[in-house]
Amino acid sequence: MVEILPGFREFYPENCFIRNFIFEKVRQMCHNFGFVEYDAPILESLELFTEKSGEEIVSQLFSFSDRGGRSVALRPEMTPAVARMIGSKINALKRPLKWFSIEENFRYERPQRGRLRSFYQFNIDIFDEPDATADGEIIALAIAILQSLGLCAVDFHVRLSDRQLWSILLQVLGVPENLNLEILSIIDKIEKETPEEIIRKLNALGTNGGLLREKIQTLMTLHTLDDLQIFFDQLSKSQNDSSGAIPARLQQMEILMTSLKHMGLQDFITVDFSIVRGLAYYTGFVFEFFERSGKSRALAGGGRYDQLIGKSGYPSTAAVGLAIGDVTLTNVLQEKNLLPSFDQKCDLFIIFDEISKPFVREDIHKLRLAGFSVTHTLKENFTLDRQFKQALQRAHWIASYREGKELVTLRDVSYGKDFSIPRQNLLTFLREKELERREKPTLPTVVK
Amino acid sequence: MVEILPGFREFYPENCFIRNFIFEKVRQMCHNFGFVEYDAPILESLELFTEKSGEEIVSQLFSFSDRGGRSVALRPEMTPAVARMIGSKINALKRPLKWFSIEENFRYERPQRGRLRSFYQFNIDIFDEPDATADGEIIALAIAILQSLGLCAVDFHVRLSDRQLWSILLQVLGVPENLNLEILSIIDKIEKETPEEIIRKLNALGTNGGLLREKIQTLMTLHTLDDLQIFFDQLSKSQNDSSGAIPARLQQMEILMTSLKHMGLQDFITVDFSIVRGLAYYTGFVFEFFERSGKSRALAGGGRYDQLIGKSGYPSTAAVGLAIGDVTLTNVLQEKNLLPSFDQKCDLFIIFDEISKPFVREDIHKLRLAGFSVTHTLKENFTLDRQFKQALQRAHWIASYREGKELVTLRDVSYGKDFSIPRQNLLTFLREKELERREKPTLPTVVK
Repeated sequence: MVEILPGFREFYPENCFIRNFIFEKVRQMCHNFGFVEYDAPILESLELFTEKSGEEIVSQLFSFSDRGGRSVALRPEMTPAVARMIGSKINALKRPLKWFSIEENFRYERPQRGRLRSFYQFNIDIFDEPDATADGEIIALAIAILQSLGLCAVDFHVRLSDRQLWSILLQVLGVPENLNLEILSIIDKIEKETPEEIIRKLNALGTNGGLLREKIQTLMTLHTLDDLQIFFDQLSKSQNDSSGAIPARLQQMEILMTSLKHMGLQDFITVDFSIVRGLAYYTGFVFEFFERSGKSRALAGGGRYDQLIGKSGYPSTAAVGLAIGDVTLTNVLQEKNLLPSFDQKCDLFIIFDEISKPFVREDIHKLRLAGFSVTHTLKENFTLDRQFKQALQRAHWIASYREGKELVTLRDVSYGKDFSIPRQNLLTFLREKELERREKPTLPTVVK
Repeated sequence: MVEILPGFREFYPENCFIRNFIFEKVRQMCHNFGFVEYDAPILESLELFTEKSGEEIVSQLFSFSDRGGRSVALRPEMTPAVARMIGSKINALKRPLKWFSIEENFRYERPQRGRLRSFYQFNIDIFDEPDATADGEIIALAIAILQSLGLCAVDFHVRLSDRQLWSILLQVLGVPENLNLEILSIIDKIEKETPEEIIRKLNALGTNGGLLREKIQTLMTLHTLDDLQIFFDQLSKSQNDSSGAIPARLQQMEILMTSLKHMGLQDFITVDFSIVRGLAYYTGFVFEFFERSGKSRALAGGGRYDQLIGKSGYPSTAAVGLAIGDVTLTNVLQEKNLLPSFDQKCDLFIIFDEISKPFVREDIHKLRLAGFSVTHTLKENFTLDRQFKQALQRAHWIASYREGKELVTLRDVSYGKDFSIPRQNLLTFLREKELERREKPTLPTVVK
């Protein structure tokens, strides 16, 4: 008996059903937003990730040498591969590109709640569209996916931040640009350390730690565009900044916020500059989705990364994207009782006696090819009573074939109602019943 | 620029669409046969495969040590994992079990036509049902999957063989049972060697090579159940066999053939004892699906493996299954022009002027949540003309919002017909159009 590895999952039918239910909701909403699906290999050259992914991710790679001596790794994220796909064919592709993927990733982390070594991510990206409306479209799609799964504004919100405004702040305060990434990583962990510790670290980088920490802390307390405006106006005046960078960037932020407001999504958005995102490749707005209770890990995260494709040696191409992880999402949906129950039932179960067997098999195969799910006993010589008992649990309709007769009895299991019809009419009858059902289409109703 | 590894695939949207089209056809027909989907990890302990898979497969594993020092491997096939899933919970599961999976597997082979290092397989299995009707159900489902993709009896056939009849033949001829697997592997490659070479190999095993080769060759020329009957009757007489094993087994084969005939599938079936299957775990009927032209590799292969689960330390459980590979299947469908063309179009493209922007965004989000695919330009300040030009290529309907008016113009792109409707009615109007389409449902038509 060989057990499964820690941090990996088996999907028994009831779990596979839930997984596929979520996949289909994601796929459907991506289609509704005009996104098309792609996929890339699960195994890649190690170099693809050591060059593009952040340090933390690289330290968690499943990497090895293959039989041909190549250094390879299981993908920890999709972005480096999709950047290659886009970059290497950019001139042949109709732009802007709206792409999504439903992919499995692998990271060697300590397995714990919300974190496994193998997990799915739903990646959504827009390429070759630098306007902030594209950032808005990405955020709106991720919100709509969660809405289509039953989550609403009381359940989760989007914490929105901007790496460019962070850079402008540092620049205006006279911090050399090459320190940006280091300072962002201090900000990323600011809530875990004492003010003295932070000041010490900032001083160690040769900056005015006291002033810098104060500005950083203040910016992190602001949660509206108006407050940002006031903060940066004052900053601009006190530092004699006349570059115009601040108003230009605040205008972009306003475009983004307005596009989300027009879509009726303002209740989902919280300005929150404590979000900076770990990955090195982000260049503009960054955002993370969190359950309001704050109990669980991020549901999703992303941002703009306009330089990644160009830096990989391809034509420079604007990009903005986001990934939703399946593990935390599934936990949250489960807790809120938003997952459907697994219905293993077929449309039809056919029960039969020995003499009717040839007819039954002929009809079963025809009905299945015509699109109905049909099942029956596989046992030779199972009594009609035992078949019927099995059938009651396994299908919505039961057809009973006896004594080789042309007339069969059809039972509607939910209503306990019987119909007697010639077997030649079975398909037509079931189609009509199916049409009746379709005439009252259950279109998705979404509560904000 | 880091390239993809040899034998791996990128799926650009047009290829991902084809891949998903095939996945959905498989999934749909499996549901129609009452099968439920499951999945298992892509990475497993190396031991799982070294114990259960055949030697050839083990020599092609992507295996390595993970960061915790475990010997692990990418799965080359699904059967060992599903045997564990079934075996470890057999008493909690409602039986018999009809399970399927759509899975990615990995084998380090020389990449060539029809063979890649990463490929998908569609596994279908029935557990805990020893009757030959279960073998028939597996074969019928695989045929129906290929039928639903447009392939018919002129395109492919099933080569059916039986490891038990092979064993009985060897037993009756006095061959010790422990030589069975070695002789089956000689049979597996019999077409590639001279008669003298075969006789030499059989003699080397201590058997009467001349007699054995003659019987083997004769059995391989038989293609009907009647011919098998005559062959084994004569064998039985000439070898004074009175064990009753031969008639009992031929009766099982008749049950299987009759069940397929009742389903109208006799034209797909060819008795062909040159099929023995490489894997060690098969114990009964084995079958391979081939394109009739014989040009391509096997489309599918499988058989009964009643001892695998019990030998893994779990309760003994009957099993029969089959796997369809995606690479050869996709090639064949492409050659026969059976793949759909990629339609990237949305239901609706909305074009708008600056003043209408707030309305447009509100409506777009509502329509998307209601299940329609809607797109629009992401550019700020794109002229209406340029938007319309883009729209014509990208959607079936175009809605035009101008001057903030409540009345919008809706163009049916295929028919060039315009409608003028209040924006509040857009959703209802599109739903009605959608219902009109649904009232003529295109149920699958399948040609045998």
